[in-house]
This record gives sequence, C-alpha cells and structure tokens, in this order.
Amino acid sequence: MTTRNRQNTLPLRILPLGGLGEIGKNMMVIEYGNDIVIVDAGVLFPEVDMPGIDVVIPNMDYLAENANRVRAVLVTHGHEDHIGAIPHLLKRLNIPIYAPRMATELIRNKLKNAGLLKEAKLNTITPGEKVRAGDLSVEWFEVTHSIPDACGIAIETPLGTVVHTGDFKLDHDPMIGQPSDLRQLARISGDGVFLLMSDSTYAEEEGASESDRQVTDGLFGAIANAPARIIVSSFASQIARIQIVADAAEAFNRKLVIIGRSMVENTKLARELGHLHIPDGLMISAAEAESLPGNRVLVMTTGSQGEPSSGLVRMSRDQHREMNIREDDTIILSANTIPGNEVPVNDSINDLVQLGARVITNRQAMTHVSGHARREELRLVLNLTRPKYFIPVHGEFRMLRAHADLAIDQGVAPENSLVLTDGDVLELTANSAEIVDQEEAGHIFVHGLGLWDEAGNVVVERRSLSREGIVTVSLAIDRKNRRILGEPRLVSMGFVHASDAESLFEDTKDELRPVLERYSNERLEWSEFEDLIRATVGRYLTRRTKRRPLVIPVTIDI
Amino acid sequence: MTTRNRQNTLPLRILPLGGLGEIGKNMMVIEYGNDIVIVDAGVLFPEVDMPGIDVVIPNMDYLAENANRVRAVLVTHGHEDHIGAIPHLLKRLNIPIYAPRMATELIRNKLKNAGLLKEAKLNTITPGEKVRAGDLSVEWFEVTHSIPDACGIAIETPLGTVVHTGDFKLDHDPMIGQPSDLRQLARISGDGVFLLMSDSTYAEEEGASESDRQVTDGLFGAIANAPARIIVSSFASQIARIQIVADAAEAFNRKLVIIGRSMVENTKLARELGHLHIPDGLMISAAEAESLPGNRVLVMTTGSQGEPSSGLVRMSRDQHREMNIREDDTIILSANTIPGNEVPVNDSINDLVQLGARVITNRQAMTHVSGHARREELRLVLNLTRPKYFIPVHGEFRMLRAHADLAIDQGVAPENSLVLTDGDVLELTANSAEIVDQEEAGHIFVHGLGLWDEAGNVVVERRSLSREGIVTVSLAIDRKNRRILGEPRLVSMGFVHASDAESLFEDTKDELRPVLERYSNERLEWSEFEDLIRATVGRYLTRRTKRRPLVIPVTIDI
Repeated sequence: MTTRNRQNTLPLRILPLGGLGEIGKNMMVIEYGNDIVIVDAGVLFPEVDMPGIDVVIPNMDYLAENANRVRAVLVTHGHEDHIGAIPHLLKRLNIPIYAPRMATELIRNKLKNAGLLKEAKLNTITPGEKVRAGDLSVEWFEVTHSIPDACGIAIETPLGTVVHTGDFKLDHDPMIGQPSDLRQLARISGDGVFLLMSDSTYAEEEGASESDRQVTDGLFGAIANAPARIIVSSFASQIARIQIVADAAEAFNRKLVIIGRSMVENTKLARELGHLHIPDGLMISAAEAESLPGNRVLVMTTGSQGEPSSGLVRMSRDQHREMNIREDDTIILSANTIPGNEVPVNDSINDLVQLGARVITNRQAMTHVSGHARREELRLVLNLTRPKYFIPVHGEFRMLRAHADLAIDQGVAPENSLVLTDGDVLELTANSAEIVDQEEAGHIFVHGLGLWDEAGNVVVERRSLSREGIVTVSLAIDRKNRRILGEPRLVSMGFVHASDAESLFEDTKDELRPVLERYSNERLEWSEFEDLIRATVGRYLTRRTKRRPLVIPVTIDI
Repeated sequence: MTTRNRQNTLPLRILPLGGLGEIGKNMMVIEYGNDIVIVDAGVLFPEVDMPGIDVVIPNMDYLAENANRVRAVLVTHGHEDHIGAIPHLLKRLNIPIYAPRMATELIRNKLKNAGLLKEAKLNTITPGEKVRAGDLSVEWFEVTHSIPDACGIAIETPLGTVVHTGDFKLDHDPMIGQPSDLRQLARISGDGVFLLMSDSTYAEEEGASESDRQVTDGLFGAIANAPARIIVSSFASQIARIQIVADAAEAFNRKLVIIGRSMVENTKLARELGHLHIPDGLMISAAEAESLPGNRVLVMTTGSQGEPSSGLVRMSRDQHREMNIREDDTIILSANTIPGNEVPVNDSINDLVQLGARVITNRQAMTHVSGHARREELRLVLNLTRPKYFIPVHGEFRMLRAHADLAIDQGVAPENSLVLTDGDVLELTANSAEIVDQEEAGHIFVHGLGLWDEAGNVVVERRSLSREGIVTVSLAIDRKNRRILGEPRLVSMGFVHASDAESLFEDTKDELRPVLERYSNERLEWSEFEDLIRATVGRYLTRRTKRRPLVIPVTIDI
C-alpha cells in the first residue's frame, strides 16, 4: 500500500524529442515512475538550409542515458516521419517495437536493410487489445489517415489516461479500412482523459477535411477527359489513392502501370495485407504499355513532391529508363505540395509543360485531400476526450499555438493547454503542470555514416561554403629555420572563375609577401601568423571582389 | 518609295532576353530594320539553387554586339524585376531611358548609387504622348498595378502596332491613380494590333482579380479588432497599401511608424509625386511610439517575403534596433508569398508566434490582392486588341502555355499564339512567324563585383561544396628530384567534424603513401599523379564515410 500511495504521487513526465515546432521526426517520450515509453521515432527530410543531408533524426541521448527504464517504442502508423528513425533508435537501445500491421511490415523492411531485423523485437498490435510496457498498459485505437492501419494510442497511468492521436482525420467512409473508431475513443476517455496529445498539422484550417470519396470523383473526372496516356503521381504509401486509380483504370478500360521502387513494394505489401484490391490482369509493365495505345494506359508513380530520384521527376527531365513524356500525356498530381517543396514541384511542372504534357493539379480538380484533421474534427476529439491537460503535437509553432487556443475555446483551462518545444521536460500531477528541465532535442544530421548535432560545424560550414566559396592558402614551412619554402599556393572553389583566378591570386601573393617576411623576421607566434594570413588574404580579396570567401591557411612542415 | 517598299517587307524581330520561362529579370528586345528598342531591364532575385548570389541579370551580349542599332530602353514600371538591371545595361551601352514618373525617380536613385546618373539620359514619359526611337514611334498607356504610374507600351511599326502590357490588372477603382486606360488601348488597337505581348503571371487563375478596395475592408477589419500594437508588413513599393494603412491609422486614432529604409524612401518619393496622402502629424518615429500605449500605434514595415535584412524578419529574430515584438502585438502580412519564398516566410511567422504575437495572413482576412490580371481580364485585353500574333510574357512555362491556350480560345490562330523561350529570335511578317535563331539568354549571376554566366563553374562549384564539403590534399614537391617533401596535409570544410578528422586523415595518408612512392619511382606524368591522388583519397573517404567530398590536390613546388 505504501508503495502504491507513493506511486500515486509521482508525476507524469512528458518529453517531446521531435515534432514540436516543426513537422517531421516525431518522437514523444512518456514517463511514469520507472517506466519510459516512446511514441514513434521518425525522420525529418532535409530542408534547404541543410545541404547534402540525407535525413534528420531526433537526439536520442536522453534515451540512451536512461536505457534501463525504456520499455518500448509504440508506433502509431507507418509514415517515415513516424518510423524512419527506428533503425537509429535500435542501434542505441534494442527495445521492443509495437506497431499496427502495415507499419510493422514497413519497419520490417527497414530493419532488414539495416541488418537489424534478426535481433529486433518487432510485434504487431491489434487495435483494442492491451499491451503491457513495464507497469503501463497501452491500447491502440484505429484512426483514418493517408496510410492504412493508422492508430492513436491510449496509455493508462495512475494519474489517468493519456491519449495520443497520432496523425489522423475523420472520414466516415474512407476508401480503405474503418473510419476513426470514435466509439473506442469514447470508451477509453470515460469521463475525461488526463492528457490529450493531438495532431496539429491542420489546426489553422477551419471546417472539416474532405473525404477520399471526393478524390474519387475528382480523379475519375480528370481521367475520363484525358485524350491519351495518363500519369498519376502521389505518395508511395498512399494506398487508398492507388486503389482509386486502379478502380479508375478498370472503369475506363485502361491498364495500370506502377512505376517507382517504393510504390511497387508498397502495392505488393498492401495487396498481401488485403488493403488493396487489384484484379489480376489489370497491372502490366512499362514495356507492355508501350505496345498499347495511349488511351488504354494509366501510369501511377511517385514524384508528387519533386523528389529528384522519383519516377515523375525523372520523366520530366527526360531521364527515365522506362518512360518518356509525350505531347498528349495528361499528368495528374494527386498530392498537396508539402511546405518547403514548392520550388522543386513547380520546376517539375514547368518541365512537364515544356515537354508538351498537360498537368492537372489540386487547383484544377479535387485530385487530393489531406490526411489531417481540421478544426471541426479537432474540436470533436477535444469534446470526446475532455482532457484535463492538452498538448498540441505534430506541427510548427503557428499550428501548435492555434491548436492550444482551440482547446482553450473548447473548455481546457488556459494554464493546462500547453505549447511545448522539443526538449522541454514537463511534469504533470493531478493539480500542477510544470516544465522542470530541458534535454538535448536538436537535430541530428545524418549524411552517409556521419551523425552530427547542430553544435557540430559541418552543416554550418557547408552553408558558408555555398554562399561565398573557399580559398585555401598553402605554404611549405621550414619551422626550425623559420623559412617559407617556395611560393604560397592559392586554390579556390565556388569563388571566382578559373580565368579570373590566376591574376587575382598573383596580386594576392604580392599582398601576402610582407606578412611572410614578418614570419621570418619578427618571430611571430604561429597562431598570430595564421590569423595574419587569413586577415590579409580575406581583406584583399574582399576589396578586389566585394565578396568574402572562407580563407583557410594550410601549412606543410618540411 | 523603293526604300519604303523594301522596308515594308522587313520582318519584325522579337527576342526575349529574360522573363519567359521564369518570373523576373524581364527584358524584351524588339527590332525593326535598323532600330532596336528594349522593353524593361529587370533582375531576378536568387533562388535556392543559386547560393550566395546577389541578383541575376539578363545576358546582354547581343545588345552590346548590336550597340549601334539600340535606340532606347522603354520602361513599363518601377519594380525591380523591370528596372533592376538598368545600371548593368548602362555600363555596357549608355542608351536613353524612357520611363513613367515613379519609375524614373526609382531609376534615378539606382543610377545615383551606381555613380552612373551624371552620364545617363533619363527621360520621364507622359502617357499618351509619342516618343521616337529611331524610326519607331512609342506611346505609353496607363495600367493598374501594385506600384503607381505603371504603364503598357505601344510601338508603331510598318507591319502594325505592337502592344506590350507590362505587368497589369484591371481595377476600375484603384486606391492610387487611374484605372487601366482601356479607352486609350482601344484607340491604339484600332481594328486589331499586329502583336500583343501580355502579362501571364496569373494566366492559370480563373475569374478576375480583386480590387484594392477589398483590401481596405480586410485591413480595416483586422486593425479594428487588434487589442494593442499592430505591425503591417508589405512590399516597399506598394504605395497603395501604405495609403490604406495610413488611412486606417487615422481612422482608428493610431500614429503611423514606417520602418525600413526602402519603405521610408518610397513613402517620401510617393508623397512628393502626390501619390500618397498622409496628413502632417500622423507619422512618428519608432522612438516616439515607445511612449504611446500599444493601441495608439500602427507600424508599417518590409519583410513580407521573409527577406533576412527586412524590418519584420529582424523583429521576428529579436534583432531589430528600433523595435521588439511584444506578447500582445498583432502582425498583419499584407502580401502573398512569392513562389520560392515559402520557407523563409513560414519561418518568420513561426518565430513571431513563438515571441507571443498573433499573426494574420491572407488566409485569415483579405489582407492582400495581387497586381496581376486573371483570365477574365486577360480575355478582355485579348478581345480589345484583337492581335494577329500573340506572345505570352512574364511567367513560367506553365503560365505561358495557359495564356497561349487562352488566346487561341479567344480567336488567335493556333499557329500565331507563340510560347517563346528566352533567347529565341522570332521573325514575324504579315503572313509568317518563324524562330530563326537563338541568342545567349541564360542567367548572369552577380555576386559583389563578379559576373558569371551559367557555363561558369562558380555556382556549380558552390552547389557541390554545399552538398558534400571539400577536402584539400596539400603536398610540397621537389619536382626536379621527384621528391615529396614532408607529409601531405589534409584539410576539410563541410565534411567531417574536427574531432573525427584527425584519425580519418591519418588513415587516409597511410592509404596515400604508395601513390606518393609511385610518383618518385615510376616517373608518373604530373596530371596522372594528380588524378591518382584525387581518386585514391576520394575512394578511401567514400568507403569510410559513405560520402563523396570534393577532393582537391594542391601542390607547392620547392
């Protein structure tokens, strides 16, 4: 009894390691007493100011430091921004993974590629069944989202129930699977949950999201009117969209060609799981399509975000092995442009138009609906769960703020509607909410085998290299006798044309000569000498070019 | 008579040097016989794949080569994408400039800053008056746009009239100046013009553009409801917007503070030209505003596009000398986000929200309308001018294509509705249209005093530097005796952390040793040796890191 009483007085600790303040690399840490569970472990795709980065993952130092208390990673659904960092997580602590069906299979592929599958403890959950993680009891409930088998998660704690919606929308008649299970959520919520964490991606958008059924109308209309070949582009994991396009192919007597490794794999997987129903004989290869007239062919591929290696973008650059754009092609972009991808998406549309194709986007027809709940749906979930505390998750600050304000409008006490930032450690008790600590939660940049945090200078260096270029000043030095041997050598990249460099660098060497003499004559300290080279060359080049390259002295001791 | 007959058989030549295929750096060359005129000379602001570039200007080699035939540059209006390259143009050929009033003053400032004003032949035109440029007769007609004194241009040629709309919209009751002068355009057009070139920026948007009067309602509504200080952000040249905000300040008993050098200058200029009417005593300084309660203050500033040095962006980063964001501030973005600027605009909104401010954009209220005509207005201009030939101008290919198709719908013969690309030389006669040549029309990148074309490798180098970083391998060499002196020195930027570099580069040097020995023993050719260093180091580093930095051998001859 003493133990239980003491336990009852423990606070619930909430620590977002990603996904709060920007979209992507979702990772939420939930702690009670001796038990830590993690909801999702996602990646962020690099943004424009992260040159050359493969992906960004959350900082997991806190989890590694508390490895003995971490019980499991609980997965809501199979999108990369929720599962992409699982291999990185497992390399540091090999904890059990619990995930819905489709997500399990996607994680399995991922772990196989990383050589981690054999050791991994990968478990498929069933919505409604309870899973124990330490002393905590966890239950998944189905939600509608733009990938099959998406779920929210409820965790029973001594303080009350914690509900995390995952990514969700309400669609009472989705193309694939069940609608969001509001009955189960109502049962879980009882008289009100202790804490609700809810998807904020569309918290600024009034009204309710459209149904996938409306996309069916939009796509069928666009496909009916196309004079020749059609190429539809969407996300590889958007299985419901593939179903609509397959249905349209059948309805309009076209054969379906699926192009793009990830989309082909996901199609296979979704058919095996029974999510996708494509009649035998409907699908043909790109080579087979060549022998059919254009109006018998419907192609589905990736590239809706302008990804350089995707099917559509390769076609738009006339660089696809299997398919060339033709003058009478109709291209349908069945996706919204994710913020940050506007430039590459626009570029690829212009390229396609230049090749003679007609491009239909969400502006000309309803070719896409989002997978995220808008304000009316968010209100419904707030009213259904009646949370004591509310934390908006998944979103930029503007969205989190809008969602927190919405929760207050719906009756959450203003002091209990909490906009957190990644790294905040929040302690909740029955009558208090306090940020008690900060943990490292910045970006970890992944490039090849390299992992760098933001304090690391690699990304910062790349940014300045790209803005101004670099000039190296190489010197051979006989330190013992304080002599410079030979001539200094200046080499630049990203700074001036080769044709201009020669005379500019000759002049720079003249400018440098007195400094080199000072090294021999005045017995300068080494660091002083290096600073002097950098300053002299930098100042002179800036004067001559009105630009400020990075200047790096390089010395060879002889 | 012979001369005139011969002249009548000459073709009209049209050569776009910028603005076709992307938005910005507008420059259209129009030639008849011995006379060349240029419509506008604008800049493009650098895009994400142009790191460190100040601006992009058109390639003017063709104009320099034909300098003796170039009569004038004819300016439509004072936006940077139409006048920004005039100093660069004048440096190569000091031709007369003809421009409407406000544009003249903006060009005057620009030439003064460039030290070119004294020599410049700068002339202010009056709409409706004729100007001679060689044998050509030119006339300006007023249009509505998002800057005062915007005009279209009509040029009489022996083949018929050429009309270039400039940037325009129809607004029959604009905040500033007259509506687009459709009577004059109708008179100029007579029974139909020979060639129409018309603004395509919004050629994909159905319907007609909204009026600035609707912005008045939207802004007044937002301003009426703000509890404390208000900061409105827009373009510095959007004088009509400044008028609306000044009117609102007066109506709601607030003082007006204008922040930002360009906006302050343009306000002064527009007041002098009589475009802007601000009562004495309405405007105060930022320092004076400090002593007033927030609900008496209305600030207008730049930064609606997320420009790093603008007023609003500095405030959002808490780096503004004169103004700090407060918790109860209302920020109104009175502008659309120009495509390509989505990321910085979004970042600044998030920063403002994090500082506690409320941010109102075009999505929450009608805080902005565009200055470009939509399809209904474009149809009207097509019907009014009844062109024989049509060339859509100002836009990306998707917009040009949409506009060309619209012209065909409105009765232009399909073979006469011509989507050109920058650099195309089009020859038009009474009964033929043919692209006869290509001129250089790529980007000229300006950075400091450097000017580079796309063939130049500086921007390309920067892109790869930013993706992978750079490693230099410096060697001191006694060539005569074929000896390597001392140790090679490896230095990197943007590649690995300093902490990882040391051991990685020691191992790389071990890998390099046999290659260095081959130089001495096998008497390798120099270039062969250099290639071998690059390949050996590159291969080894890629194996160790799964990344591919630029590897640059640097040698010092001793």
